[in-house]
Amino acid sequence: MDDRDMDHAAVAWEAGKPLVIEEVEVAPPQKNEVRLKILFTSLCHTDVYFWEAKGQTPLFPRIFGHEAGGIVESVGEGVTDLQPGDHVLPVFTGECKECPHCHSEESNMCDLLRINTDRGVMINDGQSRFSIKGKPIYHFVGTSTFSEYTVTHVGCVAKINPAAPLDKVCVLSCGISTGFGATVNVAKPKKGQSVAIFGLGAVGLAAAEGARVSGASRIIGVDLNPSRFNEAKKFGVTEFVNPKDYDKPVQQVIADMTNGGVDRSVECTGSVQAMISAFECVHDGWGVAVLVGVPNKDDAFKTHPMNLLNERTLKGTFFGNYKPRSDLPSVVEKYMNKELEVEKFITHTVPFSEINKAFDLMLAGESIRCIIRMDG
Amino acid sequence: MDDRDMDHAAVAWEAGKPLVIEEVEVAPPQKNEVRLKILFTSLCHTDVYFWEAKGQTPLFPRIFGHEAGGIVESVGEGVTDLQPGDHVLPVFTGECKECPHCHSEESNMCDLLRINTDRGVMINDGQSRFSIKGKPIYHFVGTSTFSEYTVTHVGCVAKINPAAPLDKVCVLSCGISTGFGATVNVAKPKKGQSVAIFGLGAVGLAAAEGARVSGASRIIGVDLNPSRFNEAKKFGVTEFVNPKDYDKPVQQVIADMTNGGVDRSVECTGSVQAMISAFECVHDGWGVAVLVGVPNKDDAFKTHPMNLLNERTLKGTFFGNYKPRSDLPSVVEKYMNKELEVEKFITHTVPFSEINKAFDLMLAGESIRCIIRMDG
Repeated sequence: MDDRDMDHAAVAWEAGKPLVIEEVEVAPPQKNEVRLKILFTSLCHTDVYFWEAKGQTPLFPRIFGHEAGGIVESVGEGVTDLQPGDHVLPVFTGECKECPHCHSEESNMCDLLRINTDRGVMINDGQSRFSIKGKPIYHFVGTSTFSEYTVTHVGCVAKINPAAPLDKVCVLSCGISTGFGATVNVAKPKKGQSVAIFGLGAVGLAAAEGARVSGASRIIGVDLNPSRFNEAKKFGVTEFVNPKDYDKPVQQVIADMTNGGVDRSVECTGSVQAMISAFECVHDGWGVAVLVGVPNKDDAFKTHPMNLLNERTLKGTFFGNYKPRSDLPSVVEKYMNKELEVEKFITHTVPFSEINKAFDLMLAGESIRCIIRMDG
Repeated sequence: MDDRDMDHAAVAWEAGKPLVIEEVEVAPPQKNEVRLKILFTSLCHTDVYFWEAKGQTPLFPRIFGHEAGGIVESVGEGVTDLQPGDHVLPVFTGECKECPHCHSEESNMCDLLRINTDRGVMINDGQSRFSIKGKPIYHFVGTSTFSEYTVTHVGCVAKINPAAPLDKVCVLSCGISTGFGATVNVAKPKKGQSVAIFGLGAVGLAAAEGARVSGASRIIGVDLNPSRFNEAKKFGVTEFVNPKDYDKPVQQVIADMTNGGVDRSVECTGSVQAMISAFECVHDGWGVAVLVGVPNKDDAFKTHPMNLLNERTLKGTFFGNYKPRSDLPSVVEKYMNKELEVEKFITHTVPFSEINKAFDLMLAGESIRCIIRMDG
């Protein structure tokens, strides 16, 4: 398995500059690692955020990409629960199955393999598995799926039903599961309850899909962009609130619409003001607000403590509280059982050679998810 | 039942001035009201807070008192589930059994009978049932138990096991249930987990008792007063942290003691800084912080949103999430079954004629609970 030819990867040489398809050497997997053939990948805001590298430590050249579906090509020493040919979703965060978090029923924040956006190398030896003419190219969140082949830690790979179409379920490896899980695993609306969703991007729409699947009676979408509402209806959103249309705070608008507040809210923008509104718009006595969006470093969440004392609950979630290896296969099954609809998230498809178009579409706000076919 | 003689009540004529035992006329109960003979009452910080009337709208003359045990003397029109002779605990907040909160499994914040500290009259007619020579004396939180007889709404009365000793279980009608319920109903530590308790007054000690009963392996008491620790050991507290003893924030001290944070925390001081520390000292991935203490009007709870995103939960609770009529009888049963120890909370007893001593003891920090015997 060491004698593979050169493969192609889309390399980000500099922050914000178009990716370049390059011939890249992908080293064989080492201990507890697997090498994957990526068949389909999709673009997520997190790729764009770190590619733009505004406000973070830039790490270039780098191979981005973390939403994907593929097939195990080879396995390293010590890997027993995956073998060549297995269908898999690589995941940007992992599950070692041995740390206190993996042992906890409640956490999915593995001590060993928790997302690390600053590390561009494998944890086994601190080296990259990608190189061009001997010069290392950095990894991204342990997945680097904008490459025909990639190497990941075995703990960052979910083995899924081989009958699942990888060009569809690849989107379950990040954003869609994050939003869907935030609602079904954390907010847990009961049938007939009302849910407010802040932010109607892919994650927010997936949160709405979770509310729809849970039988919510009202799903109130909140977004500053009114063009989102039509699309959002497909995901079960029944009402739309644009904070710009009101003089009063959006939490007050929602409380007035719902006789005191929604039963559940899910915040998917990362704006700290939206987080505060999402918390303050839930009903006292039983309301639960769930935070999903990632804030800026210097943000402060601020509220009057009486809002808490009045029996509201505020929770954060990460990757929808799914443990990547243990839980993700069951999300794929929800798609296979037609409980969860995935197709409606996929608005565009491009061949690998046109990967930069996926960036353009996302930056223009035109796509929810754009699939990149690695064979093209 | 209208021809009762004059009874005695301890009247607060002015903010902060000693109560005066006066002859008071207690009118008969009206629709949905009951008149109770109070046998034992105890003093709670909330009485002292509103008696001192610092920063609130003062309402005097007033009869304070809300932790008590008594017997139904007579019932008003429409009262069907209580009758004279029933043993009861009056409660400062109520349960109408008809509003959305009473119908919710999660809330105990009844729309009709939720605590109201500013209202000094009965909701039925906006009048007081207490008078001295025709001049009305205000009620306090619908209970006014510093009186031989008092009138309450039927929704603010829990009917309990008549075998329960009222001189003990009277303390379950406010503070002890508040703290105990915060732990067992809201924080819900699992057997073997660690719990931090902020504030070792009566409510905090009851929260510790809840942790002890839940099988917590470590119960870390946090208080600025080191003299509290010896007493706290009786309530299961295993370790003591005085924030004054450290240069680093107490949340960091606790995280260092517990390999990253406690599993659960319960805040019982009302200091907003303690609330923030209680939240930030719980472990990421699964930690739950519960706020019990009542903050000042102008406080702001402030934290970095990443503390939430890392899968911590922040919840507030009110009266331990117990519904007064539905749930309080079962707390009394926990005492009867010897699951919950109540005697250790009762440090002093005084006759009614010496009720001001109870205030002195609390202000000096010497008592946990001082029982006032109404026959003395």
